[in-house]
Amino acid sequence: MSDVIKTDVLIIGAGPCGLFAAFELGLLDMKTHFVDILDKVGGQCAELYPEKPIYDIPGIPHVSGQGLTDALMEQIKPFHPTFHLGEMVETVEKIGDPAFRCTTDAGKVFECKVVVIAAGGGSFQPKRPPVPGIEAYEGTSVHYAVRKMETFRDKNVLIVGGGDSALDWTLNLHPLAKRITLLHRRDEFRAAPHSVEQMRALVAGGKMDLRLGQVTALSGADGKLTGATIKGNDNSVSEIACDTMLPFFGLTMKLGPVANWGIALENNLVPVETSAFETNVSGIFAIGDINTYPGKLKLILCGFHEGALMSQKAHRYVYPEKRLVFQYTTSSSSLQKKLGVN
Amino acid sequence: MSDVIKTDVLIIGAGPCGLFAAFELGLLDMKTHFVDILDKVGGQCAELYPEKPIYDIPGIPHVSGQGLTDALMEQIKPFHPTFHLGEMVETVEKIGDPAFRCTTDAGKVFECKVVVIAAGGGSFQPKRPPVPGIEAYEGTSVHYAVRKMETFRDKNVLIVGGGDSALDWTLNLHPLAKRITLLHRRDEFRAAPHSVEQMRALVAGGKMDLRLGQVTALSGADGKLTGATIKGNDNSVSEIACDTMLPFFGLTMKLGPVANWGIALENNLVPVETSAFETNVSGIFAIGDINTYPGKLKLILCGFHEGALMSQKAHRYVYPEKRLVFQYTTSSSSLQKKLGVN
Repeated sequence: MSDVIKTDVLIIGAGPCGLFAAFELGLLDMKTHFVDILDKVGGQCAELYPEKPIYDIPGIPHVSGQGLTDALMEQIKPFHPTFHLGEMVETVEKIGDPAFRCTTDAGKVFECKVVVIAAGGGSFQPKRPPVPGIEAYEGTSVHYAVRKMETFRDKNVLIVGGGDSALDWTLNLHPLAKRITLLHRRDEFRAAPHSVEQMRALVAGGKMDLRLGQVTALSGADGKLTGATIKGNDNSVSEIACDTMLPFFGLTMKLGPVANWGIALENNLVPVETSAFETNVSGIFAIGDINTYPGKLKLILCGFHEGALMSQKAHRYVYPEKRLVFQYTTSSSSLQKKLGVN
Repeated sequence: MSDVIKTDVLIIGAGPCGLFAAFELGLLDMKTHFVDILDKVGGQCAELYPEKPIYDIPGIPHVSGQGLTDALMEQIKPFHPTFHLGEMVETVEKIGDPAFRCTTDAGKVFECKVVVIAAGGGSFQPKRPPVPGIEAYEGTSVHYAVRKMETFRDKNVLIVGGGDSALDWTLNLHPLAKRITLLHRRDEFRAAPHSVEQMRALVAGGKMDLRLGQVTALSGADGKLTGATIKGNDNSVSEIACDTMLPFFGLTMKLGPVANWGIALENNLVPVETSAFETNVSGIFAIGDINTYPGKLKLILCGFHEGALMSQKAHRYVYPEKRLVFQYTTSSSSLQKKLGVN
């Protein structure tokens, strides 16, 4: 059991809207922690189009996704938010009025007054291969990520996929595993050429197996895998023995655990009111692409507005005794002091 | 009677929110004309704090009011909006469903489908000096701005004030006027030192008069001024003859003619709904500091959001037959073509 991390506001998702929310919250003296499933900040901007220009950020004729992320990180620096990357918030439990206890899949526990869901299209999650009954083996014999390499020592591992993740884990787990089989649809790989060469050398030396085809069925019981049925590209069907399977079929956006937090959903989006972008649960807000309301546009600039209005209401929860006086960064020396410019 | 200017959208106010609205409207193929009472674009940003840094424009850690204005002008360049500066929209008349005829104090007439009020705190208007009955002379003998210098040829002009406008017009009108008297509360001027020196030289040479004190009453009839009563700093009271008075007491923000356009008002603000920021009159929208709705914050970044949502609804009025498909500037080659980057 880890120590509980206490903070004013937990922001779920470190994309541009979440990042800017930390600025507005910081101006009002609220401390923020971020949890993001990606291993870097910036959300879709940094993950899907780091180098592509965006033209509709107001006052910035063009900026790359990474450039916008960098600028926002610079802008929120005075408020020192803390980032917990490569983690997913799994549970959000109401423990006060409002107050929440949130846990991540890495075992961290947060206690906060306010939760801001800024999760964009949801979590980036691994794509599940279309194999009947695969769910029964997930978490025991089927894994979509390698958290600890030791887990795979002396295992008979079937790795499925043809991209960098499949090739990298083939090479990295090869020394530990009892046997590695790499299965891919075709004899071409979308991975670094050097990795492909290394894999082919291992295959040529009889140190591992490469098979072409697709998994059509799994055998086993009680979550313990014993083998996989492979349909080859020549339509042949064969069985290979394995106790572990690692499919690397890329990432997809899923709503993920948000669905289990007791907040109302509508077509995989979170309905909010428009004065503070609060959900049906007091103290839980949703900003950016994940929310919905009449007129909603999935634009970054709209998420900025939503974060600003959210912060005013959040202030009431974090500092119920304080009266909030609206101030401008251009004229308020108190805000400028917080920003470190006065 | 001037020719009618036809446009899709008339934006009243060329401050940052109005400017960015032209970008969002432009992406959706709507043409815009701007009318602004100031003689430059940028609104309060450019007029009140051109050189002061703003810290809360998302993605821009700091920018001056002028810098933000320049960046927005660069961003909307692909859409070639037309600016009518130094003019005030006086009337807005509904002529269709929706369609409007708007006239300015310079005699221009616009016909448009959509009106966007982005007038900030209202119009910058000259402050009226606290002189009883001054209204009766406004526009005939009392003027708050010099539109044509010729108007003042051979006049006996009383200029009141101690700032740049008072000093500049003293020097500029001196060669034309019959006689100039400059009246100021005290013998110190908040104007360029060189102008003050030039004025003092004219006074020393007997070419004009400088008086210290305040106007307490005006004499005349039927809008024709004949003299002003001056209370000196020594409490002496005297009368000076003049047929023209030019008070330069600075600018103040007034709601102005907006109050006469038949739209609902609430404490000098325009109430709007939050799905498109439309007023109670279909086709008239209000964005930026001039509008009000639950949660409203007078932040530039909120006005950007309001302009984006407004544009979607405006499209329905301008192109009732077209279905609008939501697109991103990052991925849509059709939007990029409009922006001139593809």
